[in-house]
Amino acid sequence: MNELDFIKDFVNRNQTYVKEKYGNKSSVIVTNKNANPNDLLTEVDLTIQKRFVDAVALDFPGDLVVGEESGLNQIPKGASGRVWVIDPIDGTYNFVRGINPAFAISIAFVLDGEILAACVAMPLQGILFEAEVGKGAFANGLPLHVSKTRLIKEACFEIDFSGIEDRALFINRALEVLKKVGQVRCQGSAAVGICQVATGDVDGYLHMSLSPWDYAAAQLIAEEAGGFSTRLDGAPLRLFDGKEGVLITNGALHKATLALITS
Amino acid sequence: MNELDFIKDFVNRNQTYVKEKYGNKSSVIVTNKNANPNDLLTEVDLTIQKRFVDAVALDFPGDLVVGEESGLNQIPKGASGRVWVIDPIDGTYNFVRGINPAFAISIAFVLDGEILAACVAMPLQGILFEAEVGKGAFANGLPLHVSKTRLIKEACFEIDFSGIEDRALFINRALEVLKKVGQVRCQGSAAVGICQVATGDVDGYLHMSLSPWDYAAAQLIAEEAGGFSTRLDGAPLRLFDGKEGVLITNGALHKATLALITS
Repeated sequence: MNELDFIKDFVNRNQTYVKEKYGNKSSVIVTNKNANPNDLLTEVDLTIQKRFVDAVALDFPGDLVVGEESGLNQIPKGASGRVWVIDPIDGTYNFVRGINPAFAISIAFVLDGEILAACVAMPLQGILFEAEVGKGAFANGLPLHVSKTRLIKEACFEIDFSGIEDRALFINRALEVLKKVGQVRCQGSAAVGICQVATGDVDGYLHMSLSPWDYAAAQLIAEEAGGFSTRLDGAPLRLFDGKEGVLITNGALHKATLALITS
Repeated sequence: MNELDFIKDFVNRNQTYVKEKYGNKSSVIVTNKNANPNDLLTEVDLTIQKRFVDAVALDFPGDLVVGEESGLNQIPKGASGRVWVIDPIDGTYNFVRGINPAFAISIAFVLDGEILAACVAMPLQGILFEAEVGKGAFANGLPLHVSKTRLIKEACFEIDFSGIEDRALFINRALEVLKKVGQVRCQGSAAVGICQVATGDVDGYLHMSLSPWDYAAAQLIAEEAGGFSTRLDGAPLRLFDGKEGVLITNGALHKATLALITS
């Protein structure tokens, strides 16, 4: 089994569990990470991550797994070797609170720092995004293409406002984006937001400080759909470079958006 | 048939049509109102509104219908008499662009300026919100209650950023809300955002300039679930008072939120 098939197989085996837990939210144990009421953790996050670690150990023994939840959230120094990057539930807050929630299972396979295969699954909506490098991106088997929007004032941006500290950064450095884009959305899931760049449903995605597990899978899906990704200073978006800001657009809008962000 | 039953019956008869059109978006004719690419109009908006006007004329001849789309978007002067307020699709932009779209049919019945009965229907998600004044609010028959969040820094706010002009207003008058709340979401549908106050999925909803059809139904649903509604200066939220800013919260957060907004 190749890496993409392995990820898809894992996601397909675990989506029902996530969906059932969403339908019965009262049974989901929630803890606040770092006693922060805006940073939630459920048993679903932990279970999915544990199952994935076990699955990798079985099929790809020796591979490194990097993930959002406890113990695995160490970003590798350097970029060599085989690394799996998982966010078991990207958008946990929405999973716990939301009538139309954007959350997703996000898994990528990375070799020597390059993202080679990725899936983002939205269990409630029954949408499976997938991509392999050089082979295009797909949602439920249909090819994806970014939008053709060329003007900032006609663009819809997913601006991920995240927590209070990130928002102070945003107001300092990127308030011009809020002022100038045609439409703003904030669904609170990086994986879903970036995949909407891939589908053409939004024209750009901006976040001041993402961790690799938040965007690894969606980045490949957006790029394979024709999107363009950088750091906020215009440098290439590399998973393990220690930087945090992320801008992913349809390409046509990228330069104009970067010009609205101060470094 | 009383007014709530009339609205529910209409919504139930028309939800499938909306859902089918969403599933086949390419066939939906889109025009830009006022040549504004951010203000879209589809055949679905027009069809639902037309059908509602016809239904009212049949069952309640002589009643006034006020609605978002062409010809009906005149806000009555004074507040006397029987008025039906419809937004056939609140969140049309999402209806046209979005993989997890927040949009809803929103209908309220108003007597002498007081909202007496209301439904907000989310056809894709199969959620029907309803309320009658004094009788509580319900989603698919289950009673709704606002959240108990008491601290701004722990609150999740739906901030509806709307168009570019509204955002300039927002930055001038309410940027402190963006700085201080725990979480921010922007789904781009007033009806859905306000109904999430009713369900307790968000703690507050803020918009700088809403028209009556955007919030009439959802306001009653939020209030009947224990929510509190005002203008941005703290005055009562009245449908036809000619003002535009709307703040709806769980009540506990209302005063603290108003203090973050300058007049």
